[in-house]
Amino acid sequence: MSTAITDIGELVTWEAEQPIRHDAALVVEDGRVAWVGPSADVPATDERVDAGGGTVIPGFVDSHTHLVFAGDRAAEFAARMAGERYAAGGIRTTVAATREAGADALEALGRKRLAELRAQGTTTVEVKSGYGLDTATEEALLRVAGRLTPETTFLGAHVVPQGWDADAYVDLVTGEMLARCAPLAKWVDVFCETGAFDADQSRAVLEAGMAAGLLPRIHANQLGYGPGVQLACELGAAAADHCTYLSNADVAALADTGVVAGLLPGVEFSTRHPYPDARHLLDAGVRIAIATDCNPGTSYTSSMPFCIALAVREMGLTPTEALRAATEGGARSLRRDDVGHLRVGARADLVLLDAPSHVHLAYRPGVPLVTRVLTA
Amino acid sequence: MSTAITDIGELVTWEAEQPIRHDAALVVEDGRVAWVGPSADVPATDERVDAGGGTVIPGFVDSHTHLVFAGDRAAEFAARMAGERYAAGGIRTTVAATREAGADALEALGRKRLAELRAQGTTTVEVKSGYGLDTATEEALLRVAGRLTPETTFLGAHVVPQGWDADAYVDLVTGEMLARCAPLAKWVDVFCETGAFDADQSRAVLEAGMAAGLLPRIHANQLGYGPGVQLACELGAAAADHCTYLSNADVAALADTGVVAGLLPGVEFSTRHPYPDARHLLDAGVRIAIATDCNPGTSYTSSMPFCIALAVREMGLTPTEALRAATEGGARSLRRDDVGHLRVGARADLVLLDAPSHVHLAYRPGVPLVTRVLTA
Repeated sequence: MSTAITDIGELVTWEAEQPIRHDAALVVEDGRVAWVGPSADVPATDERVDAGGGTVIPGFVDSHTHLVFAGDRAAEFAARMAGERYAAGGIRTTVAATREAGADALEALGRKRLAELRAQGTTTVEVKSGYGLDTATEEALLRVAGRLTPETTFLGAHVVPQGWDADAYVDLVTGEMLARCAPLAKWVDVFCETGAFDADQSRAVLEAGMAAGLLPRIHANQLGYGPGVQLACELGAAAADHCTYLSNADVAALADTGVVAGLLPGVEFSTRHPYPDARHLLDAGVRIAIATDCNPGTSYTSSMPFCIALAVREMGLTPTEALRAATEGGARSLRRDDVGHLRVGARADLVLLDAPSHVHLAYRPGVPLVTRVLTA
Repeated sequence: MSTAITDIGELVTWEAEQPIRHDAALVVEDGRVAWVGPSADVPATDERVDAGGGTVIPGFVDSHTHLVFAGDRAAEFAARMAGERYAAGGIRTTVAATREAGADALEALGRKRLAELRAQGTTTVEVKSGYGLDTATEEALLRVAGRLTPETTFLGAHVVPQGWDADAYVDLVTGEMLARCAPLAKWVDVFCETGAFDADQSRAVLEAGMAAGLLPRIHANQLGYGPGVQLACELGAAAADHCTYLSNADVAALADTGVVAGLLPGVEFSTRHPYPDARHLLDAGVRIAIATDCNPGTSYTSSMPFCIALAVREMGLTPTEALRAATEGGARSLRRDDVGHLRVGARADLVLLDAPSHVHLAYRPGVPLVTRVLTA
């Protein structure tokens, strides 16, 4: 079965020679990109899809989400925007609602959110646990996550749960909880930040995860300077996400090691924190990814186009750089070379935009431009 | 024919006593809201629509758009975001493309954009001319606009066209052009700003329009302090739009006269100009509206939800204040009392959101929450 997508006004493949083509066509065979070239030369295929002169891009790779949770925190958001203190429990509210919800309800919520992401062009998504904070619920969250995506992340060390000593909780995370969760996850993650887990605790979590066969990634340097990025570089993590507060040594370490800096501008939009300096990172040779961080506390957007628009407005990226970070950058953050691009051999995960150019993703902020999502 | 909308988790009517209800229902009869009350008390009707526990709000009233034009200016946008000078002609690019396009093409473009707005919840929209800058094209633009909406605005005085003396152009606008355009428009508008039209020229345009039966509104105080807002207040304009640079006297005049300050945060997002201080305006007793300013140069968003999210993040409004400005505020800006609310007697223009509360419009930025749009 082969399908030609024809009349593509602009085709973004990220091929080395010609990353963006015009008047192009693309052929999908057996779920893979089999041919890319000028519209006039398209080979015969079983089927044709007319892109109507619009833009075709690789499906977005959202490399950082917390999709599986119950409840919302709209009141907390409204209070924060009004500059008011909010008495309720922040992340604990979500942990309590998630523990109560039951696996079926969590799966239904996760599937609904996944469909929402998909409709906005996301075809690969990472999903973390981290709203259970006990062995049974973390395990249940990863079982649900595994039904949504292969990119599952064990984030038992999201925060220290109420009533626990941090070191004792790390013992649980690296012991019984890890033993139950490791078979269900690809990645291990930790929130390395003042108020969450310090350098030693974060190292213990990541090293234990690695020993159990998981690949490391980290939440780091979001709220202030800290040891997270250096730890990620030392351990060869795939990604260090947030990266707002970076020393020169942090930037150099990211550039030297190739650890991907994951930028999550929805967080800064929804918390009024300063945006990370993506321009500086790119100019310093750091690999970057853009992701939504979709979660009920600090970034309840599921929209990669919105994050691209923010990256252009607020973080100094060009529209092309932002799109690349939201596709190829996300793929690199997940150590995937089959997605995030449309070179021959890629998974045929692609998105049609009702726009003459990918620039419209930033030029037309908030507008749902995705008209069709095709997946392998 | 009567329809009950039931199982509304949150219903925003802007009724005086209870502006936002929960567990509510609403009955539509002959295109008007006929009844609002608790879900349990809903009267018998011919039809039922189940809101599934979601939120129902009045359709958005977008009181400032330039929907009818040809071409786009994506390259200019990208250059601006990169901090680069851009040699091409700004608004002149759009004027040239629009003059060339022909009425049928312009109508098709306008209808496509109108459908895009509608899908995002906008049920009343103002549409300006202003990309013709000659009598024939301005007239043609208003004919197209009139097929899209009753809220048509003659903006012949958008900028001074290339090769014209400003006063000579004002003579054209207030003479032959107005004579041809006045029968096709409800409103007259002028861009009162350094580099466009000064106070005397703006007054001449608005007064001539008023003498021809049009109602005045104005683009004012966008790029710097200026006389526009005072002129609007003096002439009893319905609205002064932009309002970024306001003196204390300007704010007092707006509050005293009830002229609506139209805030267009998509412009500031897409130009990196400072946002107007909506919080200060509201606290000073000024009536405000939020609109998209949908246009290819400075704000090519058509999304009222996006503008609401920006108003909360960047202009200090609560989600409820922002929604009110995007509905009732817009209606006031257009001197309409039949739209922008869902009190008994209102036009049955309403929007269903896949969200438990209208707060999600700001809490979930970029996410298409509108699931259904009903119009009278």
